[in-house]
Amino acid sequence: MTKTPQELAEALRLLHPDLHVSGPDALAGRDPGEHPKNLDAGVMASPSSTEAAAALIRWCNEQDVVIVPQGGRTGLAGGCESRPGDVILSSARLNAIEAINEEERTAIVQAGIGLQALQEAAAVHGLTPGIDLPSRGTATLGGMASTNAGGLLAFRNGVMRHQILGIEAVLPDGSVFSDMTRVVKVSAGTDLKHLLIGAEGAFGFITRLVVKLEPLRPFRATAMLGVNNAASALAVAAHLIRAPGLTLEAAEMMWPLFIRDHARIRNFDLSWLPEEASAFIVEVSAVSEEAAISGLEEALAEIWEAQDLQGGIVAQSLDQARRFWVLREESGFYYDIYKDPISLDVSLPPAALDAYVAGLRQRLYALNPDYHAYVYGHIADGNLHLTVARDRPQDEAEVLRIEDAVYTGIREAGGSFSAEHGVGFEKRHGYENYSDPVKRALAISIKRLLDPKGLFNPGKVPFA
Amino acid sequence: MTKTPQELAEALRLLHPDLHVSGPDALAGRDPGEHPKNLDAGVMASPSSTEAAAALIRWCNEQDVVIVPQGGRTGLAGGCESRPGDVILSSARLNAIEAINEEERTAIVQAGIGLQALQEAAAVHGLTPGIDLPSRGTATLGGMASTNAGGLLAFRNGVMRHQILGIEAVLPDGSVFSDMTRVVKVSAGTDLKHLLIGAEGAFGFITRLVVKLEPLRPFRATAMLGVNNAASALAVAAHLIRAPGLTLEAAEMMWPLFIRDHARIRNFDLSWLPEEASAFIVEVSAVSEEAAISGLEEALAEIWEAQDLQGGIVAQSLDQARRFWVLREESGFYYDIYKDPISLDVSLPPAALDAYVAGLRQRLYALNPDYHAYVYGHIADGNLHLTVARDRPQDEAEVLRIEDAVYTGIREAGGSFSAEHGVGFEKRHGYENYSDPVKRALAISIKRLLDPKGLFNPGKVPFA
Repeated sequence: MTKTPQELAEALRLLHPDLHVSGPDALAGRDPGEHPKNLDAGVMASPSSTEAAAALIRWCNEQDVVIVPQGGRTGLAGGCESRPGDVILSSARLNAIEAINEEERTAIVQAGIGLQALQEAAAVHGLTPGIDLPSRGTATLGGMASTNAGGLLAFRNGVMRHQILGIEAVLPDGSVFSDMTRVVKVSAGTDLKHLLIGAEGAFGFITRLVVKLEPLRPFRATAMLGVNNAASALAVAAHLIRAPGLTLEAAEMMWPLFIRDHARIRNFDLSWLPEEASAFIVEVSAVSEEAAISGLEEALAEIWEAQDLQGGIVAQSLDQARRFWVLREESGFYYDIYKDPISLDVSLPPAALDAYVAGLRQRLYALNPDYHAYVYGHIADGNLHLTVARDRPQDEAEVLRIEDAVYTGIREAGGSFSAEHGVGFEKRHGYENYSDPVKRALAISIKRLLDPKGLFNPGKVPFA
Repeated sequence: MTKTPQELAEALRLLHPDLHVSGPDALAGRDPGEHPKNLDAGVMASPSSTEAAAALIRWCNEQDVVIVPQGGRTGLAGGCESRPGDVILSSARLNAIEAINEEERTAIVQAGIGLQALQEAAAVHGLTPGIDLPSRGTATLGGMASTNAGGLLAFRNGVMRHQILGIEAVLPDGSVFSDMTRVVKVSAGTDLKHLLIGAEGAFGFITRLVVKLEPLRPFRATAMLGVNNAASALAVAAHLIRAPGLTLEAAEMMWPLFIRDHARIRNFDLSWLPEEASAFIVEVSAVSEEAAISGLEEALAEIWEAQDLQGGIVAQSLDQARRFWVLREESGFYYDIYKDPISLDVSLPPAALDAYVAGLRQRLYALNPDYHAYVYGHIADGNLHLTVARDRPQDEAEVLRIEDAVYTGIREAGGSFSAEHGVGFEKRHGYENYSDPVKRALAISIKRLLDPKGLFNPGKVPFA
């Protein structure tokens, strides 16, 4: 009954002139992205118009064929995994920037546009999307909407949900939801575009977006500091936020194990940083590069003693600043050290971070004295990335115990077991044990309402 | 079959010790708020705990009794209207501030807390909610969440949706939805709290909220300027946003008819303002009051000629600033001039405002040369309040023609027929003719899913 990828490809080619179809041969050998099974379906449909996407979705609905929506395949929770018999619905050919409205500070884009492509186009107008993240080169705006992406600037601008003004999407029944408002003030009945943001493809396929843009502030200064703890880093961040003439653009902390192991691999000289100190990257902008550098130096001097800073370097060139950022952004280095580490992504009220990290260390040690966690993240919004390194593959029950050690206390502290990576299928344990059961039941009800056959991204959140 | 208000009151009194019940006698003569029929149900249940609210909702569900949730009854679209046989579910006794977390910049509040009460409590910590609106004295946070309120600061902070981090609510089946996160980064499955924000009571009763707070900036300077058009006002606002050392706190424009009629009623001297000019109130903050006043004067001088400003006054005292604000905020003065004016509330991309107002004037004139519109609003986010004044009561068909004249072109321009007042039942024409039909159908489906008996605020948006 289930069609082969080849059969599916042949049938799809007849559906709509704007639908490009790649079969198993074309997909063979292509980079699957962050999850090795992303392309396992073996057939990918790439519409270049909303109508073609709708035609595909209606056909799949009639034929009971599963649809796996994909953007840049940078998702870290398995949300794009596919299987033979499924159809991958890719936004790759919905990649136009339809308009950048300079005065209005909005961009109207198709969902498959990459973040960096939009950043570059907006920069011509002195603008930038208010969201930035290390996977900017491959992540698409549609995918970022689907996971409610956060990134480096959330402490200032909020997350994708706050930067999206309008959405067009094809719902699972093939109808086109079209709410392409370009204003921040909308009180016009339940704002259902917010049901699509963060839905990870469960409720339909996003085709177009209106994104708020922010002024580009190109003149930067970057420092890497030694800090004793998160409280100290947060005090430095708060001081820089208040510093006249400066705008804080990033505040990224790397706990000792992370910065030590990473610096060693990259031959980055850390002799200035005491063993027990964390590294803290701050970046500010000002009216000129000189003003940014001198302003940053002054502001740090003001707070140096009070926060007992453990050394630090203000980058004197863009190249030096980039070397700092490589240490933070190329965070996958631990895959070279440990086989199969467990990567998680949580958020907590920032004031709770030090106590959380101390507790986590104890809980991991209690599980196994060999376990240790690489901890780093977007300190000003309380988002920690955690990679639990271990020397031998663990059975599934042990993995769940490790996850429990990471998630313990997060909900009670007002945080979230998943901050910005989404749930996919890999975070199912966290979702089902560390979120509100009434919310989960409601999500399943809505999933069944919108997608009664369960054809959109099944097996993943909300696990209907 | 339908119980009388007296019978309902007697039955409700037995339900839960935390449920205060007011019957027809207690409600007689009480101020109904913005809509004269808000209290027509004649029975009001005021829980002081989430459990009591849930008990009430379960009982109403069993008994098929309609529930009308109410906060401060300041809604301007009839969203709180009630009828005999209904039960009003009031948040008046859910009015505690549970915590203000200074370092975290969050407040945990019960839904019935008034905006001004929260402003005053937060001010002790040097903080303030990022939302402000003229009805601050009566509007509640729960009601503001239910209409996704906007107000004066949306151009800077966004609307309620952007300031709410967590929500607890009782759903129509009596279950308690509890997502009281206190972090900005959440990617943990569809974020269903956003279904409750802006739902105007259709999907349940909000009991508790986590609200983001912003730094209080108490040192202000206020000016009232004469401007030729919205483009000029927007240029002034943009200049003030960029001005070093200043933070723009408000940018409110009043078109000539509004400012002339209002100033006359209040004996406010407008001799300095040319007849054809609009009035534009700007407020900035700085490190001291003196710095705010001198900074504002300097910044205005820099842009005065380029924007051809038509006179203006920088307030030299708080009292003078308050007199400017009375002209903007006491906007109901036209009820003293015209019987039954039609008040609407739209949003447009700010750059489209001048063309829209010019077109509106033509459309109204074509309907009837006697019609004219009072136009004023939050210029920097494109939110206009529009009151169409007319000398004689009109039949219903004529009212719809006036609404069509106001709403024409708004959706195409990327705006919304309702910006911040909500839909209630009074904006049904706009809702059903100027929003996406797929979105409306989906809202009805979700309404039937959550509230199959249609007991929560029936007859109002989404008109299921």
